Amino acid sequence: MKAVAKAHTNIALIKYWGKRNDELILPMNNSLSLTLDHFYTTTEVQFDERLANDMFIFNGEQASEAESTKISSYLNMVRQYAGVKRNAYVRSINHVPTSAGFASSASGFAALAAASTKALGLEVDKKTLSMLARQGSGSACRSVYGGFVEWEKGNSDDGSDSYAKPILPEAEWDLRVLSVLLESKAKPISSRKGMKRTVETSAFYSGWLKAVDQELAEMKKAIHTKDFERLGEVTEANALKMHATMLGSQPPFTYWQSGTVSVMEEVQQLREAGIQAYFTIDAGPNVKILCLPEDEQIVRDELEKLPAVKGIYGCRPGPGIEYQDYL
Amino acid sequence: MKAVAKAHTNIALIKYWGKRNDELILPMNNSLSLTLDHFYTTTEVQFDERLANDMFIFNGEQASEAESTKISSYLNMVRQYAGVKRNAYVRSINHVPTSAGFASSASGFAALAAASTKALGLEVDKKTLSMLARQGSGSACRSVYGGFVEWEKGNSDDGSDSYAKPILPEAEWDLRVLSVLLESKAKPISSRKGMKRTVETSAFYSGWLKAVDQELAEMKKAIHTKDFERLGEVTEANALKMHATMLGSQPPFTYWQSGTVSVMEEVQQLREAGIQAYFTIDAGPNVKILCLPEDEQIVRDELEKLPAVKGIYGCRPGPGIEYQDYL
Repeated sequence: MKAVAKAHTNIALIKYWGKRNDELILPMNNSLSLTLDHFYTTTEVQFDERLANDMFIFNGEQASEAESTKISSYLNMVRQYAGVKRNAYVRSINHVPTSAGFASSASGFAALAAASTKALGLEVDKKTLSMLARQGSGSACRSVYGGFVEWEKGNSDDGSDSYAKPILPEAEWDLRVLSVLLESKAKPISSRKGMKRTVETSAFYSGWLKAVDQELAEMKKAIHTKDFERLGEVTEANALKMHATMLGSQPPFTYWQSGTVSVMEEVQQLREAGIQAYFTIDAGPNVKILCLPEDEQIVRDELEKLPAVKGIYGCRPGPGIEYQDYL
Repeated sequence: MKAVAKAHTNIALIKYWGKRNDELILPMNNSLSLTLDHFYTTTEVQFDERLANDMFIFNGEQASEAESTKISSYLNMVRQYAGVKRNAYVRSINHVPTSAGFASSASGFAALAAASTKALGLEVDKKTLSMLARQGSGSACRSVYGGFVEWEKGNSDDGSDSYAKPILPEAEWDLRVLSVLLESKAKPISSRKGMKRTVETSAFYSGWLKAVDQELAEMKKAIHTKDFERLGEVTEANALKMHATMLGSQPPFTYWQSGTVSVMEEVQQLREAGIQAYFTIDAGPNVKILCLPEDEQIVRDELEKLPAVKGIYGCRPGPGIEYQDYL
């Protein structure tokens, strides 16, 4: 009744922005991501009938009340799926420093879904695992696979056709993703609240939904033909569209800070100097930059000159879910 | 056959963004502006049958070839309207420093329309004058009136119902507009090209058109009830929507620079500190801030602390077209 799983974080190149079902976490549009090698969560789950409650240890410390409630209610869903009632002892180590500007929820819920199902002896295929991970955090469904991954939004009300599929394995195309960390000035609105406000109030949300299918098709073509320039252009255009939807919300909001725009300007200048670099931005001020391996050093060197930049974390394409014997 | 007219620049609170007819300069949506007191153009036009060509002196110097061609072709339209063929001697003094971040085309064409029609002895009402000014530069049609002014887009193909109307005279509501000048880093795409690309390619242009009527109605209500908070909120929301449409264009573009966002952040912070200040941004990096007279000094003081700010120009509501005896 014990298992250990490791899952990596992922960066969306076509963004997940908006839910059609908050409880089952069903998205309004397909998204596409790249799983990254450097940042991951390792989680051990042990079900034990002698436990009076679930117990959670995160990075060696007792989890907070809020975290515990969230994980317990997630495990309830898994227990219901498996038809068991035992409590669980969960230990999780997060190798996704919040300071790197990546959310740990994707790798966290992917690892928890994998470890908890294996600990219960369930034979789940990756499609099922992806659906289970999705119900913890939407983007977690993509971390089940390595490399380029598409999350198909699905159409059914029960979520049975909303899961991720692999597009291209991590070993097939070596790119670099630099996460550029800025000094955080203000606590931004959460991505959950941001996407909700956008779906409900933005003058541009229908335009976003109309544009995203075309961008997804172009992105998949760019991946299959390994056309880095096109991949980068579509990535950037899609991120800018997502952020534009927020500017059209009531009241409007933005995750951008002056430093965010200074990094965008630097990327533009690098391109004018012939370096293929493209940015994407999630629900926060930090910027992630896509570049080719041979350009990584010059991109780093130029970015480090910007006063707003506090750190740069580099990643390569990474693998999907892995099981381990020990934490 | 000689007349002198003075016209002030204006700042759009509901933006003019997109043409439905490039030649007649007919807009896709109504817009609403505030005419400003500080920046203006004074223009003298003298028609003289002895002149072999039109002649243009701008700020005491011979106009460039490109400027001369533009003004001549504008005067051809006025001459055709009047049924005369004489050439003109035009002297114009621009009190709109480009460095203040305001376009001089609005005050320039409003003054030229007024001076040229009067020099030809035409009895034009303000509606006709507004339509004539519009054909030089769209926003010029609003500078015919003082205070708050609405440009009705009209529906007819010949532009006969596309002109400005006064909403509230300048003496009725004392506000302040601070134009915050930033160090310019890059030559941005012209507003003419920017709006064209947006209309033709933006995923969000239909969303913009849908939203603008509602915003216009709210803005007029705010003006008539002198609700500064609501005026400011709608101004900001409208500007953000205009800039969002650019992010949804193919290829995407933006007029924002890191300094632009630093001013936006400062305005946000001023509001959190209880100061009613709201921004708007045109087709360039500079930011204009609306505030109440009693808050002007503190807004200036805080903005001057920002490293990106190179200058601050203050304005009050200003008057419409005025005729003078001498330049």
